[in-house]
Amino acid sequence: MGDYRFKLEFEVRDYECDLSGIVNNAVYQNYLEHARHEFLKSRGLNFAQLEKRGVTLVVIRIEMDFLYPLRSGDKFYVGLNTERVSRLRFGFMQDIYRLPDEKPILAAKVICTALNDQGYPRVPKEFMEQITSGLRI
Amino acid sequence: MGDYRFKLEFEVRDYECDLSGIVNNAVYQNYLEHARHEFLKSRGLNFAQLEKRGVTLVVIRIEMDFLYPLRSGDKFYVGLNTERVSRLRFGFMQDIYRLPDEKPILAAKVICTALNDQGYPRVPKEFMEQITSGLRI
Amino acid sequence: MGDYRFKLEFEVRDYECDLSGIVNNAVYQNYLEHARHEFLKSRGLNFAQLEKRGVTLVVIRIEMDFLYPLRSGDKFYVGLNTERVSRLRFGFMQDIYRLPDEKPILAAKVICTALNDQGYPRVPKEFMEQITSGLRI
Amino acid sequence: MGDYRFKLEFEVRDYECDLSGIVNNAVYQNYLEHARHEFLKSRGLNFAQLEKRGVTLVVIRIEMDFLYPLRSGDKFYVGLNTERVSRLRFGFMQDIYRLPDEKPILAAKVICTALNDQGYPRVPKEFMEQITSGLRI
Repeated sequence: MGDYRFKLEFEVRDYECDLSGIVNNAVYQNYLEHARHEFLKSRGLNFAQLEKRGVTLVVIRIEMDFLYPLRSGDKFYVGLNTERVSRLRFGFMQDIYRLPDEKPILAAKVICTALNDQGYPRVPKEFMEQITSGLRI
Repeated sequence: MGDYRFKLEFEVRDYECDLSGIVNNAVYQNYLEHARHEFLKSRGLNFAQLEKRGVTLVVIRIEMDFLYPLRSGDKFYVGLNTERVSRLRFGFMQDIYRLPDEKPILAAKVICTALNDQGYPRVPKEFMEQITSGLRI
Repeated sequence: MGDYRFKLEFEVRDYECDLSGIVNNAVYQNYLEHARHEFLKSRGLNFAQLEKRGVTLVVIRIEMDFLYPLRSGDKFYVGLNTERVSRLRFGFMQDIYRLPDEKPILAAKVICTALNDQGYPRVPKEFMEQITSGLRI
Repeated sequence: MGDYRFKLEFEVRDYECDLSGIVNNAVYQNYLEHARHEFLKSRGLNFAQLEKRGVTLVVIRIEMDFLYPLRSGDKFYVGLNTERVSRLRFGFMQDIYRLPDEKPILAAKVICTALNDQGYPRVPKEFMEQITSGLRI
């Protein structure tokens, strides 16, 4: 359990579980994406509105370590930190912990860029700052 | 907007929206299922535990009227009422309203039965009562 | 097993199955939607291109009878017929059968309309004809 | 484009695309999982049957590089190779290419283990051999 800029709580829904009775691996990506979009909103950045302004956020790499499975009805949270990787790349470190026992479930690193309306990578400077700077919550 | 035995609030997640920028039709079934399972839990009936006891809840018919689409970031709730249809069938009337304006989004009727561990329809009497009786919330 | 204008074969993917070891109910809507879009394509009507031309196909009502569950690895097909319901509405009768034994799995009726770019129901006449007329396959 | 032990063709379905008009990132994990399970089947190893025999295949790490997005209607294939990582771990190298132009879409590495029915990692020797050895197709 770490110190995160942003946390979002969830509860597993039964339709997210698969044959094995545990949350399907792909669903964790949904959780992570939703947590990123909610983090952006908390910084005044709405994903759908950014799209309309010609700024498309794009994931270019994901690394995920699956530590322990979530099951039907489990509560959990996604903790999120950010970092500037380069002029064109920024990263989200995202970890999932089960509640209330804080058991580590997943550790992920998600590298992103932004595309302009011609499809070229371009991360507006103020956007990079909004995402990667700022005091921790 | 009606008078419901059970209500559950949700918020649209971006990954639930499709090409058209609105929540994909199939996702409403996920919302409805999650609301039913949470209703069952509120009555002391856990879907996954029922499975282990050899009682499998099965949907046999769904009718859904799509009244207005939900979009990225919309908040909404599912309102739920129940009825006994026959000795072997019970129904969930489930409606979705957007928040905070209570705009009607979807009206659904979901008819269910329960299968025993040999796969035959059998709805234990106390189970039918737990689901279909009781005071409104 | 009936006589259909259009048929599309699928195979159940494991991630489409849920806790109960069977295809999750909501996934059938995905199958039905995919079959409708492939049918439209077979008539020269691409869903995504129609969107860009300002014709948005909208489902307004779905009725589904769940007759028997599909399981991991099952092969099946969706059979599809169409009908003109009114000047503004057209319907898809869609049935799912397991392969190779043709066991009936699901019977659905999906009522649609089309919205113009102001969001009003308007079904261009030639569009209605392309969808609802024509010889059976 | 490489030399793969196993290839599986797919076509993008509209419901797999999101707000941005491209396949949602999490859906690629579905594609990869389905390709792995079909590969296992091609080696005589059925995922659902393995579960019943007390051998649960578990993904412990995924790395994915997203190179270019897939869109509505795109055809593509997943190419798959395997390697023995350690006595308890095996890996799937999985790449996605668009068809017919073989444009690289995604490069992934998926590390797995198997759990016995007490939940401990244990990869039966013949299972490791079935997965990681053998002539290329």
